[in-house]
Amino acid sequence: MNGEDPSPVVSRPTVSSVALLAGVSRQTVSNALNNPQRLQPDTLKKVLATIEETGYVRSAAARQMRTARSGVLAYRLDPVRDGIGGAVLDTFLHALSAEAERRDYRVMLYTADSDDAELRQFSRLAQAQAVDAFILIETHRDDVRYEWLVEHGIPFSVFGRPWSSDSSGHAHGSSPQPAHAWVDVDGASGTAQATSHLLELGHREIAFLGWPKGSETGDERRRGWAETLAQAGVGEDRRDSLDSGQRDGILEGADAARRLLAAGATAFVCASDSLGIGAFSAIQAEGGKAAVVGFDDTPTAAALGLSSIRQPIEKAVSCALGSVFAQLDGASGASSEPSLLLPQLIVRASSRPATGSPA
Amino acid sequence: MNGEDPSPVVSRPTVSSVALLAGVSRQTVSNALNNPQRLQPDTLKKVLATIEETGYVRSAAARQMRTARSGVLAYRLDPVRDGIGGAVLDTFLHALSAEAERRDYRVMLYTADSDDAELRQFSRLAQAQAVDAFILIETHRDDVRYEWLVEHGIPFSVFGRPWSSDSSGHAHGSSPQPAHAWVDVDGASGTAQATSHLLELGHREIAFLGWPKGSETGDERRRGWAETLAQAGVGEDRRDSLDSGQRDGILEGADAARRLLAAGATAFVCASDSLGIGAFSAIQAEGGKAAVVGFDDTPTAAALGLSSIRQPIEKAVSCALGSVFAQLDGASGASSEPSLLLPQLIVRASSRPATGSPA
Repeated sequence: MNGEDPSPVVSRPTVSSVALLAGVSRQTVSNALNNPQRLQPDTLKKVLATIEETGYVRSAAARQMRTARSGVLAYRLDPVRDGIGGAVLDTFLHALSAEAERRDYRVMLYTADSDDAELRQFSRLAQAQAVDAFILIETHRDDVRYEWLVEHGIPFSVFGRPWSSDSSGHAHGSSPQPAHAWVDVDGASGTAQATSHLLELGHREIAFLGWPKGSETGDERRRGWAETLAQAGVGEDRRDSLDSGQRDGILEGADAARRLLAAGATAFVCASDSLGIGAFSAIQAEGGKAAVVGFDDTPTAAALGLSSIRQPIEKAVSCALGSVFAQLDGASGASSEPSLLLPQLIVRASSRPATGSPA
Repeated sequence: MNGEDPSPVVSRPTVSSVALLAGVSRQTVSNALNNPQRLQPDTLKKVLATIEETGYVRSAAARQMRTARSGVLAYRLDPVRDGIGGAVLDTFLHALSAEAERRDYRVMLYTADSDDAELRQFSRLAQAQAVDAFILIETHRDDVRYEWLVEHGIPFSVFGRPWSSDSSGHAHGSSPQPAHAWVDVDGASGTAQATSHLLELGHREIAFLGWPKGSETGDERRRGWAETLAQAGVGEDRRDSLDSGQRDGILEGADAARRLLAAGATAFVCASDSLGIGAFSAIQAEGGKAAVVGFDDTPTAAALGLSSIRQPIEKAVSCALGSVFAQLDGASGASSEPSLLLPQLIVRASSRPATGSPA
């Protein structure tokens, strides 16, 4: 580490110094950048060569004036809710920032505690032309955000699916599902992988620790478990007795696991690492040998030796950015291509074989 | 939730529409915003009245051209390291974004995995005039960032102290500590509060679960514990045998706690909630009654019933922003005022009284 200045800005070339060197007026330099068609070709060539020579860097404002682009993507930052589950969106945001930088873009944050507050932020950011596109998170039923952005012609991409209202019994609008760009991870595939893994370890009484029915993400994760158990011949009654929905959290996971262990469960597929860590702690506190698979592969799960389902966050970021840049470049055909990515099972110490089972 | 548009941008007033309504040229409107001194007073008045009337909002680029400000603060986003300990900076960033918005500012992210990489980002962002100020985090010895920003005249504020190299035995530069703006939380006060609290609960064998010696933040937290125990008459030899430094983490905390419990410890002051959660889990797994106080009051600590030390993050953000805006407004006198804030003990179930003690 040293104090050397990698690139001093103190003596940075300005429009004035470029004009002086090229022997033209400041207005001519400005025209070269902003209205090149107004200049004679040889004048334009001379000014651009001087700009190149001096290493003149347009300010962000000048870039925006010329390209009508800010070079900025907007992302909603939510308050910290859970130190464990929040890791997925934290990872997403860091990957988004790093990947945007590689494309000469930056991520700007905004906050909003409701859809209405978020629409007001859209409006404010759009009016100020402060951002070129939005990366949306936390999709939900009757999400009004896509429609607003489509109507206002603002590019966006969504990390999360456009959930339909049909299954919830809510009123369903007359408009069909909007055809917008989204990328999401197939949660049912994740819990199906976890369930198959536990079946292979010799377990049959595989419980599901999820959230109360009615949450889109939660119901999907439940489905992967239920369908895999059904295929293995576990009947609906038995599945129902092994299915537990509660608030997300470590203590909630521990309580539910204790109850289901008493009812005969020998393994747990969980909708989150928080629930999984709770279950794993409860099992260890009782000196038990039940197996647990969490969801999201958080750093805490890795530290504790909890098997978990990893979402391909880098790939999700790459899809979201690819879609946004395609829209910015006017390739609207490519923009509404949805991507459903497959998660991956990470096996750790909590993947214990069933008692009496080989392996 | 509804789909109403709080403020449409489709028909937003433009420089052209303002010019048309005011009966002036587009250049005159532009002058009214950017070079008001070039216009006759009555022309200026007429144009500004029309701008007011139409609700014309300057674009971010126009704002910057006129005010020479971007309205943007830069903040380094680090990769997710630990789902638990990361909660403090996540909370700081959300509070920073929300408070910046209240002052008509936005937070823009950048990434950097070394001081050198961060200086390159400073240079790039400064050259593009994309940001007005930096909010720095994660201070360390021989931090070269302050000097660079001071030299380049870029306002900044720091969440963290300028740590001196003196105590580490490293070479110390000839320059005195830079007089820049910083805000930090007094970690020694936090662990002193935790230790006093455990003494009041009847404990004497109060161990410290910290990090290996040599980390600035860790040594300070160790000091608050050691000084408070010394004042209570616990000798240096006994303190040394109750002092444990290890990598931060739940498993590391659990291992260290088991070892210290065997050595007679009945209570634990911890440098982090990760260590504290590990200690608390190990105690519960053994059916023990030892007390634990963590550090940072993370959501996970709250969920598990772990007493912890809460940093006043909102206040830290308010100090950091106050300093940056004072610098932007040219009040340089106010800018180098450091703020050392006091943390607060949050008591929960893990604050168990010593065995045989009243209470």
